[in-house]
Amino acid sequence: MEPIARHHLDPQTGVAFRLEKGRRLRIIDPQGEQVSDLVAFAQAGAGEWLSSGRSIDYANTIYLTTGHVLYSNRSRPMFTLLEDRVGRHDFLLTPCSPETFQIIYGNHDPHPSCFDNLATNLAPLGILPDEIPTTFNVFMNVLVAPDGELTIGPPTSKAGDYLDLRAEMDLIVGVTACSAEMSNNYSFKPIDVEVYAAEQPND
Amino acid sequence: MEPIARHHLDPQTGVAFRLEKGRRLRIIDPQGEQVSDLVAFAQAGAGEWLSSGRSIDYANTIYLTTGHVLYSNRSRPMFTLLEDRVGRHDFLLTPCSPETFQIIYGNHDPHPSCFDNLATNLAPLGILPDEIPTTFNVFMNVLVAPDGELTIGPPTSKAGDYLDLRAEMDLIVGVTACSAEMSNNYSFKPIDVEVYAAEQPND
Repeated sequence: MEPIARHHLDPQTGVAFRLEKGRRLRIIDPQGEQVSDLVAFAQAGAGEWLSSGRSIDYANTIYLTTGHVLYSNRSRPMFTLLEDRVGRHDFLLTPCSPETFQIIYGNHDPHPSCFDNLATNLAPLGILPDEIPTTFNVFMNVLVAPDGELTIGPPTSKAGDYLDLRAEMDLIVGVTACSAEMSNNYSFKPIDVEVYAAEQPND
Repeated sequence: MEPIARHHLDPQTGVAFRLEKGRRLRIIDPQGEQVSDLVAFAQAGAGEWLSSGRSIDYANTIYLTTGHVLYSNRSRPMFTLLEDRVGRHDFLLTPCSPETFQIIYGNHDPHPSCFDNLATNLAPLGILPDEIPTTFNVFMNVLVAPDGELTIGPPTSKAGDYLDLRAEMDLIVGVTACSAEMSNNYSFKPIDVEVYAAEQPND
């Protein structure tokens, strides 16, 4: 099946668009080892947003994969995870921001960030920066030690791997090609996004 | 030192109040094994809210304790954790809500919840229900298996244990005595809250 829309994200960039209920969003790592931050809001109003806490709570796991549902703050399904060629994504950490590079990396120079890329691209769709919650960090490989300490490993995604998500309501979606060194094994690569029409009952 | 304010929370209730910068918030588990959900917003505007993702990211652990900072979505410190008599709190899961009891417990009857208790008590202070983010779940004992699966154990808090937090900006704060069976070893107990004046330089 051919996609009805394609978005190519150059390294350290982002995109935002409307995604109607039933459509399938495919996030592709064309070269491997590249994270993509995903966020979503209800088209009906930005007061309904993707909730890490509700999604983790209802799935009872921090590693969401095929069959799991990503919920809104109102406990309504926003996405169902379909085909998952990677099986390791993170929902604990925020999109990298200018402050991330200052606080974690000690880097006070200007630096592209997922937060800025989301904020800039979501603004024309009516989303304010303060409304951006914790993102679903596709392909991000975060390990939790028994004492709670986090280790960020290289993504386990290989070239061409992807994650498919079905929209469960009419959404405004933001997607990035992540800008944080550690999350991407210290090499910034592109992300490809494809949108497929809703499946018909006889597909 | 005597507290300048006290709030006694009966089982399955909540409270909200303003907390000025520098003051110390003490959350006490008077009987033991009782969770208390904590949320905060900047008095300057509800667009700045307590962020689980930023706090976990900057602390690089899911278990925040003495010395760790709880950050806002704008990456500014909201609280510093001071004395921690328990050392096990959760920042992964949302406040229990009516939907929690339907989705996780299969209970469709009316049931008190932290979300409703926060929403009701925060409303007079100008906070909308949709603005309530993932809470800091004081004394909640969530374990993460290597495969990501979560186990909610009885709180490790004993009678009289407490956590102290210093406000790092002028805050609106919501606190509950949690209403979820599993989180509280299947017995609902009260929570006590005390507020202490800011320490003076010569204290």
